[in-house]
Amino acid sequence: MKCYIILVGTELLNGMMVDTNSIYMAENLNRYGVEIVGKSVVGDKIKDIEKTIKYGKEISDFVVISGGLGPTIDDLTRDAVAKFLDKPLTLYKEEFEKIKEKFKRVNIKMAENNIRQAKFPEGAIIIDNKSGAAPAFLIDDIAVFPGVPSEVKETFPKFLNMYFKDKEKKEMYIKDILVWGLPESELEEKIYDIILNEKGIFVEFLVKNYGIIIRFLAEKNKKEEIDILKEKIYSRIGKYIFGEDEDRIERLVLKGLENNNYTISTAESCTGGMVATKLIGLSGISKYYKEGLITYSNESKIYRLGVEEEIIVKYGAVSEQTVNEMLDGLKTDVKIAISGIAGPTGGTKEKPVGTVYIGIEVAGEKEIKKYLFRGDREVVRERAALTALNMVREKL
Amino acid sequence: MKCYIILVGTELLNGMMVDTNSIYMAENLNRYGVEIVGKSVVGDKIKDIEKTIKYGKEISDFVVISGGLGPTIDDLTRDAVAKFLDKPLTLYKEEFEKIKEKFKRVNIKMAENNIRQAKFPEGAIIIDNKSGAAPAFLIDDIAVFPGVPSEVKETFPKFLNMYFKDKEKKEMYIKDILVWGLPESELEEKIYDIILNEKGIFVEFLVKNYGIIIRFLAEKNKKEEIDILKEKIYSRIGKYIFGEDEDRIERLVLKGLENNNYTISTAESCTGGMVATKLIGLSGISKYYKEGLITYSNESKIYRLGVEEEIIVKYGAVSEQTVNEMLDGLKTDVKIAISGIAGPTGGTKEKPVGTVYIGIEVAGEKEIKKYLFRGDREVVRERAALTALNMVREKL
Repeated sequence: MKCYIILVGTELLNGMMVDTNSIYMAENLNRYGVEIVGKSVVGDKIKDIEKTIKYGKEISDFVVISGGLGPTIDDLTRDAVAKFLDKPLTLYKEEFEKIKEKFKRVNIKMAENNIRQAKFPEGAIIIDNKSGAAPAFLIDDIAVFPGVPSEVKETFPKFLNMYFKDKEKKEMYIKDILVWGLPESELEEKIYDIILNEKGIFVEFLVKNYGIIIRFLAEKNKKEEIDILKEKIYSRIGKYIFGEDEDRIERLVLKGLENNNYTISTAESCTGGMVATKLIGLSGISKYYKEGLITYSNESKIYRLGVEEEIIVKYGAVSEQTVNEMLDGLKTDVKIAISGIAGPTGGTKEKPVGTVYIGIEVAGEKEIKKYLFRGDREVVRERAALTALNMVREKL
Repeated sequence: MKCYIILVGTELLNGMMVDTNSIYMAENLNRYGVEIVGKSVVGDKIKDIEKTIKYGKEISDFVVISGGLGPTIDDLTRDAVAKFLDKPLTLYKEEFEKIKEKFKRVNIKMAENNIRQAKFPEGAIIIDNKSGAAPAFLIDDIAVFPGVPSEVKETFPKFLNMYFKDKEKKEMYIKDILVWGLPESELEEKIYDIILNEKGIFVEFLVKNYGIIIRFLAEKNKKEEIDILKEKIYSRIGKYIFGEDEDRIERLVLKGLENNNYTISTAESCTGGMVATKLIGLSGISKYYKEGLITYSNESKIYRLGVEEEIIVKYGAVSEQTVNEMLDGLKTDVKIAISGIAGPTGGTKEKPVGTVYIGIEVAGEKEIKKYLFRGDREVVRERAALTALNMVREKL
């Protein structure tokens, strides 16, 4: 089946607002085997919305719309759908009562305008919205949702259940293999022949800041074929694969800490607390994470971590020796220490921008590696932080 | 003038990739007084691209396209434009030589396919691309750009210069007023009457993670009127305004450090290094930022910062007293200390989730405040970090 997505709202056009609704909807539709054939953003003008619905209906089996269900005169999606279908807008009394009830519950006076949110094109099926005032609705293969992301997440799954109940649903299978430490071009080269000629299996590479996803998408009966492809990929680039599906490097580190009942701490220089931030972002970490030191200056490395001044003078702050002593200044079972040159300035011929020393220690065993990361300051720091966590993951 | 934006690429449809190009292009077009009337995403299918161009041309004065200029057979934007205009694709020999040259320079063997990137609809004006292989081009009010963001940023300004040179250009004036510490609804209520009836001045509120923007957009001759509105807003909510246009709280902190030649350090608990990360992200900070301590556990607060164990036992880790001692454990001219409950668990009746104590010290003068932030863990941490930096900004 084919779907066309329409986002309504002038604020999405001037570009100051990033759309996340269409990403959420597309991912969920993909799981039902639905192909997204196009996506449009339109302003709050009834004619434009109507035209876009017409266009979307022409090239797809059903149209999904988000936005323009608010109470103000700028909210015109209801009117546009009614106009396109040549059906009147009717007041759904029961829904109006529900909206009144919602306002009463939070002790807010309902504005007169809110009555608009209980009007729907005649014949529309209502989809209940527990997160906000405006219900979603479905009519003639046009499904309309609010624009607020939390309200989309509340109503969209109900729509999917309802809409695909009686349809011949393609059961889809998605498998993500997650790779770290291999550039996309090299990855593609290394495994291209494996995935080249598979019929009915859609393979794509998705570059995320947490790694590269190799995604397989196919009908459920292809699962075994995908498993075979997966095996082949593991046997060729297994050491770069850190997990599957919902795995993330930092989550796997937490799992490892839990399994071993290990505490962890971090000492960072150029990454400036990024490793700590990633760890502290995990719910459940507080039992294991003890402290993080951002020893940005040499004084701090000396005073807080006990790094010998001589070592810094002799080898430099960005060196194996300094990172080694930074590790020694920490006191937990697992330790991470990072010192590097993130740029844009500070590079030398010997240690160019992107040079980062990463040291880890797991239950007394140290490993210190030198890396050269490419990219701007932000990218270098991000890569260094995740590489450090990945080194720990490998040892846990 | 009206513009329609088209983004080409199946990877943008399945939703795994967030589009930033259209935001960049829309913002820059706004500055030329161009209204964006719609935005479409289409997959790599020549018919869909062609149809969308047709639709865009119907409802706008010119169409801007990004993506589909790569060398592979999936890259079909060139072909679609040629087909729509009913013009042949022609090899631009000079451009082909330039592409060859680009590959030679980086010592990479050019693939045969790359010849496609030197073919353009007959009559197209070439826009040079120094960041990548494929040039952009303009023909019959259709401007086509690569999909790589850095290449858009390289070619789009050249297009704007060229395209608007001979056009009657509306000179636009944009003024952003930046607000921190006031919820959007309250802000709107407080200043709504000021901005209500201004003709020809477009005012919008944009909620960003670094604050709320009150944006004025109008033709240049309205500048004085906007200045008067600005004055009125300052006199009403001046204490919540932290800057204008490109100002950011952390940048203003750095400026303050520079002016006073002050060093700075941070001690964080619930924010887990976010304040440090924001500061270290600034180029030029290394002279002033000395260290950051993420004293997540009580042991760390005691061992690293010299907080008295008694104080933690008596008042709790999340308390004015503990934060006060955390400040004392730092050694710079400017200090920031934060301890709070970011959630989702850990709240009590007395100190619910969102309770955060923030202490700052500037040249010996301390200020410690208690806040209650609403939102999930991420939001609480983000707000606490920026509020701390804003407290410092106010004192510098």
